[in-house]
Amino acid sequence: MTEHYRRLVLSARPHGMVDDTVVTVETAPIPEPGPGEALVAVRYLSIDPTIRTWMNDVPGYLPPIGLGEVVRSGAVGEVVASNSDHYKVGDVVTGLIGWQEYAVISGGVNVLPAGVDPLVAMSVLGATGMTAYFGMTDVGKVGDGDVVVVSGAAGATGSVAGQVAQRKGAAKVIGLAGDAVKCAWLTDELGFDAAINYKTEHVARRLAEECPDGIDLYFDNIGGEILDICLGQLAMKGRVVLCGAISGYNDEGRPVGPSNIFNLIIKRGRMEGFLILDYFDRFPAAQAEMARWVAEGHMQHKVHLVQGIEAATGALNLLFTGGNTGKVIVEL
Amino acid sequence: MTEHYRRLVLSARPHGMVDDTVVTVETAPIPEPGPGEALVAVRYLSIDPTIRTWMNDVPGYLPPIGLGEVVRSGAVGEVVASNSDHYKVGDVVTGLIGWQEYAVISGGVNVLPAGVDPLVAMSVLGATGMTAYFGMTDVGKVGDGDVVVVSGAAGATGSVAGQVAQRKGAAKVIGLAGDAVKCAWLTDELGFDAAINYKTEHVARRLAEECPDGIDLYFDNIGGEILDICLGQLAMKGRVVLCGAISGYNDEGRPVGPSNIFNLIIKRGRMEGFLILDYFDRFPAAQAEMARWVAEGHMQHKVHLVQGIEAATGALNLLFTGGNTGKVIVEL
Repeated sequence: MTEHYRRLVLSARPHGMVDDTVVTVETAPIPEPGPGEALVAVRYLSIDPTIRTWMNDVPGYLPPIGLGEVVRSGAVGEVVASNSDHYKVGDVVTGLIGWQEYAVISGGVNVLPAGVDPLVAMSVLGATGMTAYFGMTDVGKVGDGDVVVVSGAAGATGSVAGQVAQRKGAAKVIGLAGDAVKCAWLTDELGFDAAINYKTEHVARRLAEECPDGIDLYFDNIGGEILDICLGQLAMKGRVVLCGAISGYNDEGRPVGPSNIFNLIIKRGRMEGFLILDYFDRFPAAQAEMARWVAEGHMQHKVHLVQGIEAATGALNLLFTGGNTGKVIVEL
Repeated sequence: MTEHYRRLVLSARPHGMVDDTVVTVETAPIPEPGPGEALVAVRYLSIDPTIRTWMNDVPGYLPPIGLGEVVRSGAVGEVVASNSDHYKVGDVVTGLIGWQEYAVISGGVNVLPAGVDPLVAMSVLGATGMTAYFGMTDVGKVGDGDVVVVSGAAGATGSVAGQVAQRKGAAKVIGLAGDAVKCAWLTDELGFDAAINYKTEHVARRLAEECPDGIDLYFDNIGGEILDICLGQLAMKGRVVLCGAISGYNDEGRPVGPSNIFNLIIKRGRMEGFLILDYFDRFPAAQAEMARWVAEGHMQHKVHLVQGIEAATGALNLLFTGGNTGKVIVEL
């Protein structure tokens, strides 16, 4: 008797938060790998804000997920059958495998080196960690004495970004997060100099107190009103790194732009966007540096594990409701 | 009998366009220069959008003009009496002399080299020309093959900026201006590849036609809706140089920000502001290069002369109504 597996497909374009009317469960027979192919049993799904943007039918840095297609997502799995010269049974692989329990691969995914914890590979050493690293260093040019503000600071990227800034000489790192527990984690465990609860505190006033000489580098994960406030409080030659705009990903229509943009003239400031896609060839050196910090205890991280493929949709929504601390990963 | 002179002072904070309720004429005796001082008879006033921003009581890159103070402005004059070791009678000097017929100076203004046309010194080789030069080269990093869009293209800065782009290897230069005569001047005399009349044409559609592969460099003099359109049509690694935001200088309240700002992420784009103040020490080399282009006929410019100090207020408003082509200068 043929065994079956489950996969989640995009069956309609979402409006706002995603639910089971737009992401539906399909069941199919587990496929046999053909010549040159391998079969992967998926162990972990990487849940990232960008997945939500791929669900919209608008051009982006990757094409939209097509209707009827498996939801695109990073994942880690184990090769369980192979006719490929590149992959052998037992290899742990990582790549854009998608929200499914099994996948046939012929390339495009990488084998994790032995001894690497898949959860670390998916967080600090994965796309979110690399986004934090290159956004802070290559785009933001973080340097000695910088006063750095990070929004979405308790998220997978923000929490690492703040620590990268500290390792690279920032004088002060302030994180914005959405509840007291997250704020305490930032200051007590990650060593942020200050944390601001943007839901209960007056962000503009608190930032002005914490950054009396202005913000040298704002690492923006959320866009919206907080981006506008930070633009208005830039220090001379301040930089804004546009990493993401979570606050608008579920919105319909035109987002409201920041009205303080012309402070970039007064402050000779720079605002720059980037995508981690462009840095793949520089991952090894960055991963080596980050792995060293992890080993030395200078790079903390947290994984928010959710169980079962059917929980993937809800796990994605956590990113937008602020329900997570650290990297969200679904364990299959 | 003591002779008198006129000066224009800021007597109230303006709302919107400036008129004689906020800028009023004063008459005073022509002063005698004291020890170390010289008396300047002012010949030309440089009329620039930034003057309007100095009239607001908000912090900027220079302090606001105080109520009762002479309106701050670049000017060119001639030394007519001197007790200074630095200035001799007959010297032509340039600096922030203000809207007045006479001024006593002790320093802070520069002597124009003999043979330099004051009108060229105030336009192509002055602050507006230098703004165009450094904005295009140092901030915008204009280079071979770039598709460049300039707004306010018939203005003193925009008209020079487009030509600097051409001299520095741009593949295509498109100017936006507010009437057909200006557009014809851009294409027929300055050699722009295309001009778009933003008042009568569909800017987004025309830009998409002219820049099918997107905009590599947008030199923004006006802000507002056109900035938003250009952000939405950036090419990969596109740059936006924020030079000014004329469209909002007379507005009250918070300006509307550009909603396409997050295209900077998708396109790995950069938006950067600058002020020409930071480039004073690099003026000589830039002026030498620009003067060579002028001499070779590769840098056209136009001066919009207005007569009489009492016309200065109206001349300033021309910049915001689009009533000028090229550099606005008041001749006293």
